[in-house]
This record gives sequence, C-alpha cells and structure tokens, in this order.
Amino acid sequence: MRAAAADGRVIGLAGGLPAEAQFPKRALARAFLHAVHRAGAPALQYGWAEGSDRLRAFVAGRLQARGAAVEPADVIITSGAQQAIALALELAAGPGDAVGVGPETYPAALELIRARGLSPVARWDGAPVRYVMPAVHNPRGDGLSAAGRAELLQTPGAIVEDDAYAELRFDGPPSRPLLADAPDRVLHVGTLSKTLSPGLRIGWLVVPPRLREQAVELKQGTDLQASSLGQAVAETYLLGDGELAGADWEARLARLRRFYRRRATLLGRALRAHLPDWSFTPPEGGFAIWARAPEGHPPVDELAFLRAAVEAGVSFDPGSTFRPDRAAHPLAIRLCFSAAPTDSFEEGARRLARAFSPGRSGAV
Amino acid sequence: MRAAAADGRVIGLAGGLPAEAQFPKRALARAFLHAVHRAGAPALQYGWAEGSDRLRAFVAGRLQARGAAVEPADVIITSGAQQAIALALELAAGPGDAVGVGPETYPAALELIRARGLSPVARWDGAPVRYVMPAVHNPRGDGLSAAGRAELLQTPGAIVEDDAYAELRFDGPPSRPLLADAPDRVLHVGTLSKTLSPGLRIGWLVVPPRLREQAVELKQGTDLQASSLGQAVAETYLLGDGELAGADWEARLARLRRFYRRRATLLGRALRAHLPDWSFTPPEGGFAIWARAPEGHPPVDELAFLRAAVEAGVSFDPGSTFRPDRAAHPLAIRLCFSAAPTDSFEEGARRLARAFSPGRSGAV
Repeated sequence: MRAAAADGRVIGLAGGLPAEAQFPKRALARAFLHAVHRAGAPALQYGWAEGSDRLRAFVAGRLQARGAAVEPADVIITSGAQQAIALALELAAGPGDAVGVGPETYPAALELIRARGLSPVARWDGAPVRYVMPAVHNPRGDGLSAAGRAELLQTPGAIVEDDAYAELRFDGPPSRPLLADAPDRVLHVGTLSKTLSPGLRIGWLVVPPRLREQAVELKQGTDLQASSLGQAVAETYLLGDGELAGADWEARLARLRRFYRRRATLLGRALRAHLPDWSFTPPEGGFAIWARAPEGHPPVDELAFLRAAVEAGVSFDPGSTFRPDRAAHPLAIRLCFSAAPTDSFEEGARRLARAFSPGRSGAV
Repeated sequence: MRAAAADGRVIGLAGGLPAEAQFPKRALARAFLHAVHRAGAPALQYGWAEGSDRLRAFVAGRLQARGAAVEPADVIITSGAQQAIALALELAAGPGDAVGVGPETYPAALELIRARGLSPVARWDGAPVRYVMPAVHNPRGDGLSAAGRAELLQTPGAIVEDDAYAELRFDGPPSRPLLADAPDRVLHVGTLSKTLSPGLRIGWLVVPPRLREQAVELKQGTDLQASSLGQAVAETYLLGDGELAGADWEARLARLRRFYRRRATLLGRALRAHLPDWSFTPPEGGFAIWARAPEGHPPVDELAFLRAAVEAGVSFDPGSTFRPDRAAHPLAIRLCFSAAPTDSFEEGARRLARAFSPGRSGAV
C-alpha cells in the first residue's frame, strides 16, 4: 500500500486524505508569520496542556450553535482527533471492555481499541462503551437515522462521538451532536484535519465537567500539549489577530461541501459505468464511497484483489480493516474521492473492474 | 503557579522554558514558507506514523556520531519527548512495575509513571525498568558519573534514556549515550524542544529493532503521527531544501551552550550573594539549578514557602514534585535560569531570601 501511495502511476482511491488544492496555503502562511512574531512567541514556546483558550472558545461556540451546552472549559485541544479518541477510551473504558462500533468503522479507532486490550464489537447494545460517528459515518458516508439515534441514546453507558466529518455533510449545516442530548456521558471528538489541514494536528475532546481535571492530566502525561505552532496557526487563521482578519469559515465550509459533493457525484458515476453490478449508497458527506461487491460471485480473496488492483494501477482501502471481526466477506471496499484528480475517476473505476474478475480462473 | 506565570511582576524561575530570544524566528519563518509551498504540501497533509525520513536520518546521524549504531529505521519521530517517554514506558514496563528514577527526576515523567499505574522508586537496582537522564540531569544539571553509568549498565532490564538536555552540556559535545552500550535494552528519548523550539513538538524515540513494529503501531494508535507542520519546519530549517541552505546546527548549539552557561553563572552568583546558607552544585548543563535549603532550620512548609515567594514576586518549582515519594523534605527547589531576564536574577534571589525566613514565627 505504501509503495502504491508513492507511485504516481497508481490512481489513489485509498487513504482518506483531504485535497491538497483546498489547503489555504497563503492564508496559513500569513497566519504563521503573524503568530511567530507575536510577543512571547507562543507559537514556538510551551503552552498549557488543555490548549489555546481562543481555540477552546471557538470549538465551544460552534458546538453551542448546534445545540450543545458546552463551555470552553470542557474543551481540550488534542494532537488530532486520533488522540482525542485515545483519551476518550482511556477515560471511558475499563480493562477488557467491549466497545460497540457498528458493523464497520474507522480503522485507526479499531486498531487503537484492540491495542488497548479492548474488544470491538459490532453491536451497540450491551457494550459499556460505544464509538460512533453519527454526523457523517466513515466509511459509509451516511448520517445516523433518527431511530438509530434514539436507540443509541436509550442505551446506558459512555458514548465516544467522533464528529470528524460533521462539517462536511454535503447539505450542511452539521447535525445536532449527541453531546447536546447526553452531555453527562458523551465524550465528543472533533478535528480541523478534514476542513483545514491534517498537518496541523489540531483536534479536540469535549468531556463532561466531572472528567475535566482527569482528562487534562491524562493529556499532559501523554504529550504535554498539542503543537503550539499548529494551534497558533489555526487560531490566527480562524480568528485573526489585531489587524489581520480571521477567515470566513462558513464560506470556506460551504465551498468544501460543494467541492467534495461534486467529487462524490463524479466517482459514483464512474463506478456505475464500470462496475455496474457493485452497489453503494451515495454518501451524504465525507471523503469516501463504501462500495459492496456483487453478491453471488465466487469467493474473492481480498488481498489478492487489492494486489491485482494496485497492479492494474488503482488503490482502495480493503473492507476487512473497517470491521470489528476483520471479516473480508461480504467483500466491500472504501473508495476515496477526496484527493485523487477527478479526471482519473473513470480510469480508476475501469482498472478496478479489470482487477475484479471473480470468474477468471476461480479467483481474482 | 499559573497566575504567577501570567503575572509580569513575578520573576519566573519556574517552568524550564527555553529563552524566547534564542528562537530563530526568521529562519523558522523562511523554512515554513518553503515547506508550505512544496509540491504535495507535506507540511499540511497527513504523513506516516514513524515520521519524516529526513528527520529520522538526522537523528540517527547525530547518535552515530556519539557512538551509537543507530539506523534511521530505529527512529520514530514523536509529538515531543513526553510522548516518547510515554511510548517507551508502554513498551518496556509491565502492569504495576516499579520504575527506578533516582532520588529526584523530571516531574512530568513521574506523573506519567503514576498515571500509568506504575510505581516510581528512587533506587535503580531491583526495578525492572529505569528512567534516567545520564547526559544532563533534570533538575540537578549534572551528568552521570562513570561509576553510576557502570552500575546502571550492570543491572539488567530496560532503560529509558532521556537525552533532552544532552546537547546543552555547557562544555559540549554531548556524552556517549547509554544506547551505544546497551542497544538491545535502551529506549532512547530526544527532542528539539530545548535546542530549537518546544512549540514544534518534535521529539524522537529510538527503539531496539525487535520493538520497531510494535512501537510504530503504538505511536499510530496514540495520535497517528507527529505534526507534519512541525516536522516540515524543523526538517527544512535543519537540513535545507533546494536552494535554501540548512542551519549551521553545531554553531547554534555552541551559541546556546555559551548563552545558558552564562545564565547559570549569573543565577549562581545571585544565589550565593542572597542565600549564602543554601547549597547547590553548579550545573554542567541544562536550564536549572537544584538548590537545597540550609539544614537544621526549623521545618518549613513547602507550599507556604512557595506562596510566600510568589507573594514576594518570585516563582520556583517545589522539590516535592521531583521526588518519587513526593517528599517535601529535605527542602529543595528548582530555579530555572533559562527564560527570565538575567537582570532579574539578583532581585529574584533577594525576594527568595525574603520569603524564606524559617525563624520568623516558627514557619515561613
């Protein structure tokens, strides 16, 4: 997969990267130059474990607008959403706990759950902790239904709410977070990685007030603090500084939603043209399409399919990495429309179709 | 302590911050502008968990020059040294293990050890894991003696070697790392926080080859990767890029050593003048002086002393935070000469002397 990612001839539909073209390079450079020359150079110096007060207030304000009664003091700026998930699990899960994740979920969360000696399980009910993506699901790209939401909120226990793609719901604005309805047991995770830049490593964790102190101690022990540089650049870009105006964040989000929606449409069209017997639900947001292979084909070895695809010049994320039991069947794959050139989608789908020929000599 | 840190009237001898005047702001800004406009924008995009290959090679090269047979593949770039310590403990320590740390050590390591359910103990022998700072000790500022080194290497078990201040040995160059003599059981921790900027959050962990894979998985689960932005800025600053030349790192380190040595001398002089019955060993490197209160004084309450000091307008780090058993006696404090203005040292020592008056009404 690494070799494929580095190989310019391979059409990259794996990985879930944001589009480089959408990084506001000039505005971030301006923000950096401002931040680095500020008195005391907070961008280069140590900061407090809980993070920048302006960023915490920004996060709280945006969640308040979505119906959650969040105070800035409830927000910890983390080294990306992954760290926020790790801290949330450490706060919410006991040794060996089952973590309800649904039938498929974000692979790095799954790996983390396993690495911590916890058990990822598909079912939500019965698990003392749940890890969910209600706003926009990764890899499926859908939002949680009203019935699913009610069921989830009826079940007792902690909920880790991963809101990473919430702002990239194509028909925005983002939905009401679970945090708004169960603030005492939802640990809410967010990030600037999808909407601004993953290289800044700026995420956040919102915890119930009773866990504030413990969460900050945990964060401090883990890595002292999120990057001062990343925080200063993000804060200055978003909120301005003196004569430097902050970004028009809503306008940017609206642009991003249109940008990624168009890409979703184009990739979906290419898939229907070249893989007509595959099925997928058009995503409501995010970076990817979760595509299911036609049923009734002879069993296809997932790894062999991946190898054949890379050989044919296209990459994808294999379905087994998204499943709590690592099952490769029924065969499904995640195809990311976020970063590859749109004019490669047709050819990418064609190559996928070529690689996927279950009839051919009994396997791929 | 926070209020004191934010109060401009308090002379800050706490905290262990590097001097703002030594941040190479212009060179870092140049590096940033280069990095952000590079094709593919790696500074803003996701990267691999183990970090930038150029930085890994830089770290390996510098350790090789100090006698350690380190390959770039042994190096993981971490979100600061604190994360490297956390990963090292997770790799090396079993549940409930004792961790030998010596009579005093870096407070954030102690807190981490406790938070992980491990037991920090003063003695090295008998503990299955040791956490040590052989090059320049924090808070004492001394290097490990030849006898201490031999003893440490004779004792079996894992060693977490924190090399954070190694490059800031006043008489440089840095000493031979333990890693050079016990590569199979030393987990070596380093950082750019003291020599370049803590705001970048760039540290590293060097692990024995057998732990490489596990260490990278652990790092990935923790926060995916160190800041792409911090890595790109550091890498471009240190190693250049195209027509942009890299820094003269050795010249910078030599300057920093002179800068901090002079500060150590000045603070030491102020202490001898105003606290003549306190004792300390002039540091061989680092950011601080470990000062011991005169013996035989009536018991002094550490917290009351700290409060009195802050009221008098000077801050310090209380000794109990450096001790595995949290003992406040014998009374000792860490005084940092790294960041406060040198012309405040005399007055700082005078205020300390005023706050410390064990005779006065039986306590502080």
